[in-house]
Amino acid sequence: MLKKKYLVLSAVLFSSVSAFAMSDAELIKKAENVGLKAIPQSKLEVLKMVDNPKNPITDEKVKLGNMLYFDPRLSKSGLISCNTCHNLGMGGVDGVSAAIGHKWTANPHHLNSPTVYNSVLNLVQFWDGRDPHLEAQAQGPIQAGPEMAAPKDLVEKRVLSMPGYIKEFKKAYGSDVKIDFKLIADTIAVFERTLITPSRYDDYLNGQVNALSKEEKAGLNTFINKGCVSCHNDVGLGGTMMPFDHKKYDFSKGDFTGNKNGMVKTPTLRNIEETAPYFHNGNIWSLKTAVKQMDKIQLSNNITDKEVEQIVVFLKSLTGEKPAINYPILPVSTEKTPKPMMN
Amino acid sequence: MLKKKYLVLSAVLFSSVSAFAMSDAELIKKAENVGLKAIPQSKLEVLKMVDNPKNPITDEKVKLGNMLYFDPRLSKSGLISCNTCHNLGMGGVDGVSAAIGHKWTANPHHLNSPTVYNSVLNLVQFWDGRDPHLEAQAQGPIQAGPEMAAPKDLVEKRVLSMPGYIKEFKKAYGSDVKIDFKLIADTIAVFERTLITPSRYDDYLNGQVNALSKEEKAGLNTFINKGCVSCHNDVGLGGTMMPFDHKKYDFSKGDFTGNKNGMVKTPTLRNIEETAPYFHNGNIWSLKTAVKQMDKIQLSNNITDKEVEQIVVFLKSLTGEKPAINYPILPVSTEKTPKPMMN
Repeated sequence: MLKKKYLVLSAVLFSSVSAFAMSDAELIKKAENVGLKAIPQSKLEVLKMVDNPKNPITDEKVKLGNMLYFDPRLSKSGLISCNTCHNLGMGGVDGVSAAIGHKWTANPHHLNSPTVYNSVLNLVQFWDGRDPHLEAQAQGPIQAGPEMAAPKDLVEKRVLSMPGYIKEFKKAYGSDVKIDFKLIADTIAVFERTLITPSRYDDYLNGQVNALSKEEKAGLNTFINKGCVSCHNDVGLGGTMMPFDHKKYDFSKGDFTGNKNGMVKTPTLRNIEETAPYFHNGNIWSLKTAVKQMDKIQLSNNITDKEVEQIVVFLKSLTGEKPAINYPILPVSTEKTPKPMMN
Repeated sequence: MLKKKYLVLSAVLFSSVSAFAMSDAELIKKAENVGLKAIPQSKLEVLKMVDNPKNPITDEKVKLGNMLYFDPRLSKSGLISCNTCHNLGMGGVDGVSAAIGHKWTANPHHLNSPTVYNSVLNLVQFWDGRDPHLEAQAQGPIQAGPEMAAPKDLVEKRVLSMPGYIKEFKKAYGSDVKIDFKLIADTIAVFERTLITPSRYDDYLNGQVNALSKEEKAGLNTFINKGCVSCHNDVGLGGTMMPFDHKKYDFSKGDFTGNKNGMVKTPTLRNIEETAPYFHNGNIWSLKTAVKQMDKIQLSNNITDKEVEQIVVFLKSLTGEKPAINYPILPVSTEKTPKPMMN
């Protein structure tokens, strides 16, 4: 079946002219052979890829999750929402080196906020990979002292104090819903699962051979040849491995050493142009420098400036189309809503 | 002309049954006589009311202003946007007592963030009324040390470093546009001018006599009879006067004393249900308490609990329909973009 599809595809592909001595069909095949995968064109296939059978995606849950994602009242101060550090208008990140949270506290490990876009494609969540999925991840930053700093029961009391939220939870989960911290986080995760950003790169792998320029195709080829794909692979171009041994390199900031083996998760490269600064400690602001550093630390193949530039050109083709986000009108606080706490 | 319109309107109105010994036509007339005015039904009339002849509203400017309004990179830290304190999902406010800004600094005068919704209807801006219009107002919080803390030239450098913004400014103002701090603030103001929220109260004053319930009409009548309208009048139900003598009452927090005569601006009552806590120092969380306090301090007519409740029921009818806000995808930072500064 797959073979037949390829024969048809190849007939189209071989007719196009390539920038280097390789046809588009060959480059696409090469990309697939090293483990690169496109976001499917079919919306149904995308839904299958991102859905959680234990809490399936529905329009009502996504709408409610969108509200919760933007609601700063899930934080102790009432000022910090998920979107503060994972800003959907800015590539799903905050654009600062180390995340800043409650009381202007910098992340104690000097960790950079990872993007929420396509985060469902990560095999594990957090830089140290300590949580397996978004449902578990969403519970973390809400409670963490240097982030949103809200204990579970405060979050529950805030949400339960607003009839507007109770109504939306009933719509999403039925009238006998039990609204607790876990369900609040699960609902945020449902919304986050929809934040997929297909790009021209996906169009190319899906057979639209003019979706990438000659230079971008050359960059993809270099990206493969230089071995970047050994970690940045699969649909997310990253997020599948914990290969980075922190001990190999002193980043000079922070005391984060990864998981128990000192390992750090490979981040996705999708929307990488929008998610500076780079690396788990947000220490590198230039994409060129980041590519050079990764080559030096992880691959040691003395990459040339020209190759770096080619790869950067390719990486910019990973900037994807964002789903339209309606800024939600949030439920009204009531006199029962626990007050914001600044300390 | 006006008279003729009234005769036609009255014919419709007199047919409805009123909760108290007054017809809808009489109540509407009474409201108009004390200076209450509806947001017009005609979009053209609304546009005339809010437009700035020196920088007329266009779709391109509104789109760009929407982007700038949500862009935290207009602040020194890169973390605080206009929307942080004037949250469009939360009645145009932050829901905290005193505004919190750069480095988690509380407003030094313990001032509460006023709503941005319908703020164009204010005769003057800021609690002390020191700026005449939104264009001037928008320049303030961006620069203020305890708010966004960004010097003019930093804001200009950030915006000018992003080709995405330059493109949008050219679309809005033509290819020879000179992008400076003033124009950035002016463009934010254009967006803010569109943030008008018509409510059922407006429908009622515009002749839809069933738009308010019996209780809400009774509340409106009490609101007028008790003299609330002596300050909360015109289209904004406030925003037109500086009547509040700070010396009359010790709010126990903050050192704000209003303008040079100790006076404080009357805030709009539109969306008041959504904009707790109340008063210029955000000291009162309950709408009932706020009504009682205002009666005691400003009117001294020993309002009864029943009258307070009636007025509160009426005030909730001022919660208006918000314009749909698309959360904007912001231009990408470049290597030239001045970095966030946390201190």
